Amino acid sequence: MVRLNEVRAGELAVDLPARADAEIYFIGRIRTPWTSRLECPRQGRADGPTCRIELFAPWDKGLDHIAEFQRLEVLYWLHESRRDLALQSPRSDGQARGVFSLRTPVWPNPIGTSIVQLVRIEGATLSVRGLDCLDGTPLVDLKPDRTLFEPLAPAQAGDFQVGDA
Amino acid sequence: MVRLNEVRAGELAVDLPARADAEIYFIGRIRTPWTSRLECPRQGRADGPTCRIELFAPWDKGLDHIAEFQRLEVLYWLHESRRDLALQSPRSDGQARGVFSLRTPVWPNPIGTSIVQLVRIEGATLSVRGLDCLDGTPLVDLKPDRTLFEPLAPAQAGDFQVGDA
Repeated sequence: MVRLNEVRAGELAVDLPARADAEIYFIGRIRTPWTSRLECPRQGRADGPTCRIELFAPWDKGLDHIAEFQRLEVLYWLHESRRDLALQSPRSDGQARGVFSLRTPVWPNPIGTSIVQLVRIEGATLSVRGLDCLDGTPLVDLKPDRTLFEPLAPAQAGDFQVGDA
Repeated sequence: MVRLNEVRAGELAVDLPARADAEIYFIGRIRTPWTSRLECPRQGRADGPTCRIELFAPWDKGLDHIAEFQRLEVLYWLHESRRDLALQSPRSDGQARGVFSLRTPVWPNPIGTSIVQLVRIEGATLSVRGLDCLDGTPLVDLKPDRTLFEPLAPAQAGDFQVGDA
């Protein structure tokens, strides 16, 4: 069962900082078939339903050349998630684990990331497959899938540095 | 050459929104060998130098069970980046492309993502390889690499849904 707002046995809620450190702009909205967190997939699938990513102006101008990439990385804001759990119990069985060892919607900064297949672009709207989030989820960022991207700018010193470990 | 603060020929700077929509807590700090953006790699490499991710309390408690994963996804805040470019010219040659078709540090929400190899954990500090960011970069999130993670919670209806396209 998905968490609505409860703290479960074994979980650890911490005090959130009094002040935030940085600010996010919502640059678009995601449309999916899932209107309740009780229906959302635990993980997106490449053959899942086609979802829409609608960019707000003026950020739609940033879509230029995006059609070159078959897969995109999408970052979105999990706006219904609580943010204060350091330990979580995904099975609600009293066994808790650190938040950073889980891919759940609950994190101090609730940013989900998915790799999606780009199906179609119409104006400021992308159709994609592979998402797992709620209908109406705010969009935070879009990037080419890292495995498809070659930097266009010239390399820098750090690109050639290897470690000794 | 890395952008310091200039807008290059062909680029499009837009007005940023007057108000932000959400807030980020910095949950730690990243230590790398690169103290200037003119040295940072364009992309991290799996055999690159060992870097450190230092978690701030109380978020270090969230590291519990993270040692189970050989690779992690790291989200970080590219704190020196300008945020207002919708079109960018990575080669500074007058040819511009949409921000979302590039993996550069400049985005409306400047959040970098890397997949890193977990080398070692000592208290609240992870040693990892594969980062590309500046020394002192604020940490936003950590998750298991998606290809290594199996949800612990029971599946939901959406997990079985496939599309018709």
